[in-house]
Amino acid sequence: MKLVTYRINHTPARLGFIEENMVIDIQKLAQLKAMHMPDNMLDFIDLGIEGVKQVVQLYNTATKEELLDTSIPVGNATLMAPIPRPRKNIFGIGLNYTEHVAESARTLDTSKELPQQPVIFSKPPSAVIGTEGDIIHNQKITQQLDYEVELAVIIGKGGKNIAKENAMDHVYGYTVINDISARDCRRAGQWIVSKGQDTFAPMGPVLVTKDEIEDPHNLNLSLKLNGVEKQNSNTKYMLFNINDLIHDLSTVFTLDPGDIIATGTPAGVGAGRNPQEFMWPGDVVEATVEGIGTLKNYIVDSEEVNN
Amino acid sequence: MKLVTYRINHTPARLGFIEENMVIDIQKLAQLKAMHMPDNMLDFIDLGIEGVKQVVQLYNTATKEELLDTSIPVGNATLMAPIPRPRKNIFGIGLNYTEHVAESARTLDTSKELPQQPVIFSKPPSAVIGTEGDIIHNQKITQQLDYEVELAVIIGKGGKNIAKENAMDHVYGYTVINDISARDCRRAGQWIVSKGQDTFAPMGPVLVTKDEIEDPHNLNLSLKLNGVEKQNSNTKYMLFNINDLIHDLSTVFTLDPGDIIATGTPAGVGAGRNPQEFMWPGDVVEATVEGIGTLKNYIVDSEEVNN
Repeated sequence: MKLVTYRINHTPARLGFIEENMVIDIQKLAQLKAMHMPDNMLDFIDLGIEGVKQVVQLYNTATKEELLDTSIPVGNATLMAPIPRPRKNIFGIGLNYTEHVAESARTLDTSKELPQQPVIFSKPPSAVIGTEGDIIHNQKITQQLDYEVELAVIIGKGGKNIAKENAMDHVYGYTVINDISARDCRRAGQWIVSKGQDTFAPMGPVLVTKDEIEDPHNLNLSLKLNGVEKQNSNTKYMLFNINDLIHDLSTVFTLDPGDIIATGTPAGVGAGRNPQEFMWPGDVVEATVEGIGTLKNYIVDSEEVNN
Repeated sequence: MKLVTYRINHTPARLGFIEENMVIDIQKLAQLKAMHMPDNMLDFIDLGIEGVKQVVQLYNTATKEELLDTSIPVGNATLMAPIPRPRKNIFGIGLNYTEHVAESARTLDTSKELPQQPVIFSKPPSAVIGTEGDIIHNQKITQQLDYEVELAVIIGKGGKNIAKENAMDHVYGYTVINDISARDCRRAGQWIVSKGQDTFAPMGPVLVTKDEIEDPHNLNLSLKLNGVEKQNSNTKYMLFNINDLIHDLSTVFTLDPGDIIATGTPAGVGAGRNPQEFMWPGDVVEATVEGIGTLKNYIVDSEEVNN
């Protein structure tokens, strides 16, 4: 199921799913059968896979007229980030693809050795935007705004000290994150300012439930800047796979339903190029993960946003 | 007003305030006058200083019998962290006292130069515990568990790009944080695993509203380990004061009501001592900030917690 958080013009956010180019409203679909369903993604994730099953059944038993009454064409909906306001920070994983470790060591201040444990950082909930949203470029703060396409894992069942072999039981689904990084905003080596500024966590366009992704460790992921491909790899090249990451994170932090793990980016980032290529107002960046879709965002100058 | 989140035995958390050694329940006090008040700190902070004024008025006009009906002795209440579950991560400030910059440079991997901008990191909401709570020592992960007493600022009014001269208008109040740090858990230099593990953000015992603290930049703060004083300084020695920190954080992150800023620790941490002194199961650590109180916690072995 391709779940979306959406709105029509400036109405409040709603929860839906996409079938045959239509966004079907989950709460409205349930109301047809006098059932209650949440109007937001986090409460829906709390229902677990059971919620998805119920919605599939509602969909399969609905008449064509009922579906028309509870849906709109995708083109008429504004897709927001699947989780517009995460309950806590987004966990990011640094240096999780071999070639990206190498390019980072050449051009940034990181080690050329492969990390022995996942390198963890975070982005606050205030950083999240959806597809078609604007990434704010504040030239007073950064001249090194960079992109990073990543597969993001959404936790369905929380836990502590989760064993690797059970880790996939804790996954609810997947989305795309562009891990925007202002390379020159590190402070005493810490990445949160570099990676956590408002609008630095574009996410979407949809949340694909686990059942639709046959093997999350074999997905192509790529990124285009102004239509030109800059990154192209596959999740099979992750140093620490999803099982490793969930296990490792859960040994130090309690994981909760709706938590988001951005699993790291492959090679090809702007800072790793020769010469380096960063993003500037007017640029368009498209991050794609196979089976999920393309997350498209625009770089805008902070002065334009404030005016 | 000394606000508390409390419970009696294992009841759900309630919101109260302390007067004359009694915890008075805010929602129950309001109900006496058929008024509605929240039962939790975050919703109460959303009411702003107006909520505090209303509660003061309710208190002043209540009869002795009414107060008795809505209160319990402090000794009968379990004080929890004032904000047991922050809406987003806790912002921490590293290296914000001169002598601590020096001791860190001697014994850790940080620079001996004073930072030119606040050094920002974060702790997830899952790290929060209250006074008298247990700090979990996982010996599989760390042999360098350290303490850091800090003044924590609670944001009342959110904002972006907050000017220094208006910054205090955005403060709701203050509490004490012990910024627990596993010095050997840094990964590629990132601090979130070192500082963000479950139970690594003890906070409390109370949230003191802004009006009760005459000058937050002139408060003694100190820490005892097993009754022996290890840290003793004053908030006047911060490199970046509260106005600076709120301004700076708000230039990169939208600040929201209930956000927490741990303003950094002075010298005397275990890693900075010669020889180094870390915390072990059985230890008791007490962090005190003038005008707020003492936050007391116990170090316990993770194996004991899991059994």
